[in-house]
Amino acid sequence: MRFSNIFIPTTKEAPKDAVLASHQYLVRGGFVSQVSAGIYNFLPLGNIVLDRVKSIVKEELDSAGCNEVILGFVTPASLWEESGRFARYGKELLRFKDRKNLDFVLGPTHEEMMVNLVRGKVTSYKDLPLNLYQINTKFRDEARPRFGLLRGREFLMKDGYSFHPNEDDMVREFALMQETYSKIFKRLGLDFRVVEADSGAIGGEGSREFMVLADSGEDTIIVCDSCNYSANIEAGTRKPRVIEDERPKADFDKFKTENIKTIDEVSEFFRVSKSYCVKAIAKKAIYDDRDEIVIFFVRGDDELEETKALNSCSANEIIDATEEELGGVAGYIGPVGMSSQFYIDSELKGETSLICGANEKDFHFVGVDLEKLAPDAIYKDLIAVKEGDCCPKCSGKIHYTKGIEVGHIFQLGTKYSESLNANFLDEHGKSKPFVMGTYGIGVSRLLSAIIEQNHDEKGAIWTKETAPFLVDIVVSNAKKEHELNPAIEIYEKLKEAGIDVILDDRKDRFGFKMKDFELIGFPYAIVVGKKIKDGLVEVVKRDTLEKIEVDLSDFNRILEIINC
Amino acid sequence: MRFSNIFIPTTKEAPKDAVLASHQYLVRGGFVSQVSAGIYNFLPLGNIVLDRVKSIVKEELDSAGCNEVILGFVTPASLWEESGRFARYGKELLRFKDRKNLDFVLGPTHEEMMVNLVRGKVTSYKDLPLNLYQINTKFRDEARPRFGLLRGREFLMKDGYSFHPNEDDMVREFALMQETYSKIFKRLGLDFRVVEADSGAIGGEGSREFMVLADSGEDTIIVCDSCNYSANIEAGTRKPRVIEDERPKADFDKFKTENIKTIDEVSEFFRVSKSYCVKAIAKKAIYDDRDEIVIFFVRGDDELEETKALNSCSANEIIDATEEELGGVAGYIGPVGMSSQFYIDSELKGETSLICGANEKDFHFVGVDLEKLAPDAIYKDLIAVKEGDCCPKCSGKIHYTKGIEVGHIFQLGTKYSESLNANFLDEHGKSKPFVMGTYGIGVSRLLSAIIEQNHDEKGAIWTKETAPFLVDIVVSNAKKEHELNPAIEIYEKLKEAGIDVILDDRKDRFGFKMKDFELIGFPYAIVVGKKIKDGLVEVVKRDTLEKIEVDLSDFNRILEIINC
Repeated sequence: MRFSNIFIPTTKEAPKDAVLASHQYLVRGGFVSQVSAGIYNFLPLGNIVLDRVKSIVKEELDSAGCNEVILGFVTPASLWEESGRFARYGKELLRFKDRKNLDFVLGPTHEEMMVNLVRGKVTSYKDLPLNLYQINTKFRDEARPRFGLLRGREFLMKDGYSFHPNEDDMVREFALMQETYSKIFKRLGLDFRVVEADSGAIGGEGSREFMVLADSGEDTIIVCDSCNYSANIEAGTRKPRVIEDERPKADFDKFKTENIKTIDEVSEFFRVSKSYCVKAIAKKAIYDDRDEIVIFFVRGDDELEETKALNSCSANEIIDATEEELGGVAGYIGPVGMSSQFYIDSELKGETSLICGANEKDFHFVGVDLEKLAPDAIYKDLIAVKEGDCCPKCSGKIHYTKGIEVGHIFQLGTKYSESLNANFLDEHGKSKPFVMGTYGIGVSRLLSAIIEQNHDEKGAIWTKETAPFLVDIVVSNAKKEHELNPAIEIYEKLKEAGIDVILDDRKDRFGFKMKDFELIGFPYAIVVGKKIKDGLVEVVKRDTLEKIEVDLSDFNRILEIINC
Repeated sequence: MRFSNIFIPTTKEAPKDAVLASHQYLVRGGFVSQVSAGIYNFLPLGNIVLDRVKSIVKEELDSAGCNEVILGFVTPASLWEESGRFARYGKELLRFKDRKNLDFVLGPTHEEMMVNLVRGKVTSYKDLPLNLYQINTKFRDEARPRFGLLRGREFLMKDGYSFHPNEDDMVREFALMQETYSKIFKRLGLDFRVVEADSGAIGGEGSREFMVLADSGEDTIIVCDSCNYSANIEAGTRKPRVIEDERPKADFDKFKTENIKTIDEVSEFFRVSKSYCVKAIAKKAIYDDRDEIVIFFVRGDDELEETKALNSCSANEIIDATEEELGGVAGYIGPVGMSSQFYIDSELKGETSLICGANEKDFHFVGVDLEKLAPDAIYKDLIAVKEGDCCPKCSGKIHYTKGIEVGHIFQLGTKYSESLNANFLDEHGKSKPFVMGTYGIGVSRLLSAIIEQNHDEKGAIWTKETAPFLVDIVVSNAKKEHELNPAIEIYEKLKEAGIDVILDDRKDRFGFKMKDFELIGFPYAIVVGKKIKDGLVEVVKRDTLEKIEVDLSDFNRILEIINC
């Protein structure tokens, strides 16, 4: 491809709201252009990269036995009503009416559609297992679309759904998909981790996320320094802490604690380690049919993990409760005599000599034995694992790292096959709901993730597998035939060798063209300049910006440098 | 691919509303499944065919110098307001609001989006010409979605838009696109015609449609039997008729014609050829800001062509006027003393001795000389060319044929670049609007068109270029290893030879599997049955159903039959 024949509108201007390098370079490098908040056009270079990603995804999935389909994007609301999600799904679900006043949604995910596709068509255990996927547009009406392609509203996703006669077979497929996804991200040239992930209200261990490691990642990943344990902080656990601070000695009693509200204040007032002070976090939980105040209790020096809190109360959403909603006892909430539902962190189970609120303004209890005070309490893992905590598997030290979620695989079970009444006959002729798995890859998001992991202050640095072109031949002065002609020669030779190459034959200044090379991030440039009169060109590696002079006649040396 | 590893839910049941073969076979053959009116899922086989079509389209466009992009599907209404189409486009434009109450549409076509993408990014004549296209989802909220993929609401389209410094360059690109489209449809194995097409209010000759010839086609094409002239009836013209019937002799006069309303009645009453009776067709024309009654006049033995009528009055839409709206003179409308705007067919220009309505109930004029009676009339080509009319180019005879529109290329001019203020600087530094062309292919619709042209009473017959697999190896009894094993051997050999082959290894009855072969329409089957003990297999051609016995050891003979 010649630069002059492809539309690559590079620019010096980054969008005002572009805080991330990937957002800046995707726009500045002419890969994408914004249409509206969270909606992007893919320009020719962006489209080429997307195609590379898509074809790697497709190749690996197909060779793992998956079948590609394309589902309708505009989806009848009736299917979402069957699953119960039409009412429950938040405002991210874009709902609208067609000309006949029928309700539709723009598919943010396609469980309902895929189950609907299969039901009635797959009727026997003999037709199972089945793993169907698509690479198609999704729409989620995010409240705050941002970070370019990382948190868009319209985006390209690979979503797959598998159908199985039983859980064992689904678990087998889940493992196969974990392997397949790992192959995909490896082929894309990414440094990633497979981490344990939140599996929502379903629970269990059947959820893994694929995280591209990048400082700018929105997700916090906990990683063990001595074994391979890693998890999204939303799902990560630790070896239960052993509190080494002195345990306070006090009989059960109620103390006046006027204006003593925060854990710091309580700990100082009673001169007791925060570990023995119980922290209460009040939330408003939103359910299908009601809102409800729920209280979570953790040790004073632990933090509540919001996703764990949400899962423990099985609400659709939880938001901070206001002081008003708490009726004036904020700062004094305790796990006794409460009208609200409450949940206590598992590590507090059986704990004694604690200090907690008395559910009465200006009063705390001391010497609390939880088993006596709240015998019917519900204990759940509620805490956010901290750096320095002990690994639940090997007792190694936990560290934090940051990641960008690019894939998620999930053991779904029978949730959707039951609600949508999608059954098959097993080998005994008995009707059973399909056991399902679901598997997603953020295809357009990957473009951002790749750049977040691979860039410098000059621009993007594409991995070889995803680069729009591997080599950019930069003609120093394209008006001079004695520079342009040898450049065309190398260009043709590289094309013949099967290498994706672009020839920058534009009649612009050399410096301008090199800046474009650095900004766009082709892995290599071959500069054809003045030294061509001595038969010399310069190969530039984009990652290190190292320059290597090569004799033009030594084509193999060029191939060696670009590692082909 | 093995049949047992791919989801192909064939069925005997055709949808109740499926009147066309393509609709029946696409559903029955397991290519697509309906989600909602005009919205379809593409199952694995359908997806494979789509991919074949898409890659042929992409290859030819790329080698013609076009650049592929992907535009946002969810489109801000603000762009459509700029072009003026937000209000003007009918109910096919699906409008909705996002969570922030902003107006959006689902793109039915992307002129606005593409102009918006280019404006500000292409600023100089040096960057021109530019031809950008996408192969992407479209949504048109059709009042009556029907015929499977032929008239869907959600569909896949290739839409391209080109930008030029002047009209000459646009006309050059238009010719290149006509050539490129012809290559594409030829490669797809289709029998098609390039026809002159309606160019709407813009007029001119810059509009061509690509019509797949099929009896079931919705479009009527007029074709000359002696030259290459062909046109959509919406745009077709004829050599002006010479009326040979005796011209009536009468001075201008008003006649009482009680209850004489239709052309038949008028012609009989006055004993005058219908050619001399003027037929009035009254329509309500709908404009942006008003509705208006407009009247069209043609000879009594001609028919009004609705698209020509619409273009002549430049309305958004025309619908039949009611008798009420005509104020009681229906049947007596004439081109004089009317308050309504009216248009007269060009072939009536200068005509004399006519009979027409007097715009008064129960009265007609005779001996009408139009130039005297209506000196300021607007004359337009309004008639539908009839079979037997004379070709406008060579005077040959016109015939009708039916076609399915699969492509349309159009000289758009500056309509959108002007309304969206998209300009460039020419070589003199002068700001000018881009001159544009637009080019579309109905990609998903092509699946239907291919089958409409290629099927029999048993099922589809895919062209070699579009078949999901070229060869279907049918194992007569897959439970018998001495049949299955040689079948696997041929399968592997064909795969090695680079042939797209599917192995029907299902443990179903032979007859069932052959019915699937015929229904799905793979171009060839290789049957491995009892005769395999003598080393013989049978090659079946799907189009003729001819069976050829071949010695298994003679692999070249097999290749010869399947023409590879």
